[in-house]
Amino acid sequence: MTAKIAEDKPLVVAGRELKSRLIIGTGKYQSYEQNARALEASGAEMITVALRRVNLSDPDKPRLVDFIDPEKYVFLPNTAGCFTGEDAVRTLRLAREAGGWNLVKLEVLSDPKHLYPEMEETLRAAKMLIADGFDVMVYCSDDPVYARKLEDAGCCAIMPLGAPIGSGLGIQNPVNIRLIVEQTSVPVIVDAGVGTASDAAVAMELGCDGVLMNTAIAEAKDPIRMATAMKHAVIAGREAYLAGRMTKKKYADPSSPLSGLI
Amino acid sequence: MTAKIAEDKPLVVAGRELKSRLIIGTGKYQSYEQNARALEASGAEMITVALRRVNLSDPDKPRLVDFIDPEKYVFLPNTAGCFTGEDAVRTLRLAREAGGWNLVKLEVLSDPKHLYPEMEETLRAAKMLIADGFDVMVYCSDDPVYARKLEDAGCCAIMPLGAPIGSGLGIQNPVNIRLIVEQTSVPVIVDAGVGTASDAAVAMELGCDGVLMNTAIAEAKDPIRMATAMKHAVIAGREAYLAGRMTKKKYADPSSPLSGLI
Amino acid sequence: MTAKIAEDKPLVVAGRELKSRLIIGTGKYQSYEQNARALEASGAEMITVALRRVNLSDPDKPRLVDFIDPEKYVFLPNTAGCFTGEDAVRTLRLAREAGGWNLVKLEVLSDPKHLYPEMEETLRAAKMLIADGFDVMVYCSDDPVYARKLEDAGCCAIMPLGAPIGSGLGIQNPVNIRLIVEQTSVPVIVDAGVGTASDAAVAMELGCDGVLMNTAIAEAKDPIRMATAMKHAVIAGREAYLAGRMTKKKYADPSSPLSGLI
Amino acid sequence: MTAKIAEDKPLVVAGRELKSRLIIGTGKYQSYEQNARALEASGAEMITVALRRVNLSDPDKPRLVDFIDPEKYVFLPNTAGCFTGEDAVRTLRLAREAGGWNLVKLEVLSDPKHLYPEMEETLRAAKMLIADGFDVMVYCSDDPVYARKLEDAGCCAIMPLGAPIGSGLGIQNPVNIRLIVEQTSVPVIVDAGVGTASDAAVAMELGCDGVLMNTAIAEAKDPIRMATAMKHAVIAGREAYLAGRMTKKKYADPSSPLSGLI
Repeated sequence: MTAKIAEDKPLVVAGRELKSRLIIGTGKYQSYEQNARALEASGAEMITVALRRVNLSDPDKPRLVDFIDPEKYVFLPNTAGCFTGEDAVRTLRLAREAGGWNLVKLEVLSDPKHLYPEMEETLRAAKMLIADGFDVMVYCSDDPVYARKLEDAGCCAIMPLGAPIGSGLGIQNPVNIRLIVEQTSVPVIVDAGVGTASDAAVAMELGCDGVLMNTAIAEAKDPIRMATAMKHAVIAGREAYLAGRMTKKKYADPSSPLSGLI
Repeated sequence: MTAKIAEDKPLVVAGRELKSRLIIGTGKYQSYEQNARALEASGAEMITVALRRVNLSDPDKPRLVDFIDPEKYVFLPNTAGCFTGEDAVRTLRLAREAGGWNLVKLEVLSDPKHLYPEMEETLRAAKMLIADGFDVMVYCSDDPVYARKLEDAGCCAIMPLGAPIGSGLGIQNPVNIRLIVEQTSVPVIVDAGVGTASDAAVAMELGCDGVLMNTAIAEAKDPIRMATAMKHAVIAGREAYLAGRMTKKKYADPSSPLSGLI
Repeated sequence: MTAKIAEDKPLVVAGRELKSRLIIGTGKYQSYEQNARALEASGAEMITVALRRVNLSDPDKPRLVDFIDPEKYVFLPNTAGCFTGEDAVRTLRLAREAGGWNLVKLEVLSDPKHLYPEMEETLRAAKMLIADGFDVMVYCSDDPVYARKLEDAGCCAIMPLGAPIGSGLGIQNPVNIRLIVEQTSVPVIVDAGVGTASDAAVAMELGCDGVLMNTAIAEAKDPIRMATAMKHAVIAGREAYLAGRMTKKKYADPSSPLSGLI
Repeated sequence: MTAKIAEDKPLVVAGRELKSRLIIGTGKYQSYEQNARALEASGAEMITVALRRVNLSDPDKPRLVDFIDPEKYVFLPNTAGCFTGEDAVRTLRLAREAGGWNLVKLEVLSDPKHLYPEMEETLRAAKMLIADGFDVMVYCSDDPVYARKLEDAGCCAIMPLGAPIGSGLGIQNPVNIRLIVEQTSVPVIVDAGVGTASDAAVAMELGCDGVLMNTAIAEAKDPIRMATAMKHAVIAGREAYLAGRMTKKKYADPSSPLSGLI
């Protein structure tokens, strides 16, 4: 007798296997050291880095790479702060020349009020980057129509937002996330909006392949503990999805059948 | 540098220490063997048993104790199927004489449609049992007024329902659960209503000390896998509660501050 | 051709017919005059009055009755501020002697933090009042078990709370309200918790016979306009309930069938 | 003393004043006669017509205009069933030649599964139509970025979806609707997704200028009564929005202050 269940398949993005389905960020931490400790606690193997903010190379200042080993973790350069396609493409080309990064996260933002992606520019930039040989994971709205265009263009992961970046409001539109999951062949990874552990579990229960988050961990009162929480939440949601939940019922249904009692 | 966080205190109910904050049931499984495997996967150390349904002693039929070792797990006899206080008290006295069980879960039900507790009878029965030396964990409505009466009467754990037994609807009234958590000194354990992993996480994020569930695991398509999911969900929700979640915001807040970009 | 529909039956409470299903209060208004104007705008025919706070008889101070005509509106004396059954019963007996009021709203409160009803005391007081010849509308928790006891005791209206008094959080537990509606023969009137128009509509869509509210109107920026909103919201929710809503669907269903297009 | 409040301004779309903020459709009714009766009950002054489905001109078949007078109601031709911009533009040009309609509702659909708008095509078609002199009300996703593009292109009303057409799921993403309302100068009208009265009230409470619905009325058990419900729901939500709702509170706040009781 054993409680063994078949192990979950790894998440595969552009040929890279990841055991953890959680991806974390590098913003808002008190220090690179705290960031590194949160990463360790989270169990994540991939970490996203804003090329326009994080110091990767200047040896006179603290460098992220002195705390988080690029040999041990997959660095995912992103284009946070880019508001045009050209901007994003230029930023990523420079990064590839400097660090050899080919797998990237594209985000082309619009209004700072909501930081939603500019979808026309995003699609245009994605095509340029793919033509240029990049593997593009793409931050996008939760519009299934655009999600399909991005997949058709060759993006290697679709990353719809759950709520505005940094808002912590949780998944606003489960219907759209579900529609995107149902239609998509590459990994779907909710990016932005998670506020606490149950939000991450909900994303995974909808069938997403992963979750990317930053503020929920970095702005928790205890970021390291929240990173631990998120590690478990993503596993919980994933396993619940694979297990197949019970049907909801309008009335009670006794655990202990009331007939045939001894 | 380390990702260590202070370990959570164990859940203590009537002097018994439990490392896992998840309690599971013994109803609706296909077999005692499946029940045992789910228990192992769940990591739970306490398991509740309907005295009126589960065979504990008749050696001519399959017995639960042949599959789940009462030396290894804490058996929590319950009064499922009892509709009066006297019924519940009589059932538990017989069980104590037979098996020595002193720590019990009291439930006095009302209408089969919702299986909500009959609170007047529940309080009356709780007082009888406590006077008789039992340690009483008590299934109750989510009314904070009655929760206080039960605590004042000496119950060792308050177990408000999240939704009708077996409904899988999730926590219907987080306001009430929060009010009960804020006012209660003994453990608060949500009992009934959880349907999937995120529901369990939500219960723990509200500050509950534990979650008891049966149908969510037993009626999942893959009960063993769902038991695993629940193990992680309870840890996730607990750690998120201890970590202190970020504040929700009405608008976006960039992970990578937009000013000062290089 | 006509758009006529059968007119809704009136709400009947203890033999009194009310065309409006909205009942409003007399607390927190800037003045009795504002209260009177809100009442007019709301279309309500019944108004509840806290006997312990509202001046009904002292001619040296502003009196509610100088602004709201007891001949024109049904005054519903309530026991707000009573924390024991005896207190509530004494208060209502005095009121009956002074003003002849026989139809009353009973509330026996507990903790000021949530102002939930003390259900044991409430039931006890209800029985005393009914034995004494009162028609008792009763503020209660949303526990269907207690709702049935109150109905069995002879209360003429069951008034479950939607959320804590004055919180404006809306109906927290639609499952319980629905269960109460399904089992109850006398009018069910949601009392407490409504914050805005849609909350009132939701209560009525669940099948309730009416809604009582105070803070949602009195603390709106423009109480008179909010009273108008609530008048329409209660009608909207009631008519929607009677009309029978469409079934929810998981996917789109075109208004204009896509086949057979010209 | 009077309960009068300043009357709400009319909804103005492309110079046309509408007293009712409700717009209804012409699909799924049992007959044109039933449609006409629902229209009358709803109080709507504008009705949208699928050019590809509704018979407007063939005198040998029942014609909508024999039941609903185009002199009395504003007909809003729409492009339901069009899946490309060209298709939509051609359809509307033919309609203008035939019936003189200049104010139109543009919808360019994508996948029948969700019937979401194809936003790139929608924007392209909107520009063609506006250049061609049409007044374009536009069905769109709830993406604020695209909503702004459509407004910048000169659309006279922005009509974000609340949920998939015909689903009756209610407003899925209130955050997005609010963001669109905050940024938009022309009327914002929720189009698609409303299932019952409270859904319409919620849309209006978010600050929308109007609501368009079809299935919620046509597929109610009693469409005429549901039309009445919706008339009141839209007024209720609008007035509540103008009135300014009370603040939500975490704890109770007595209607009748507990201090200073007599």
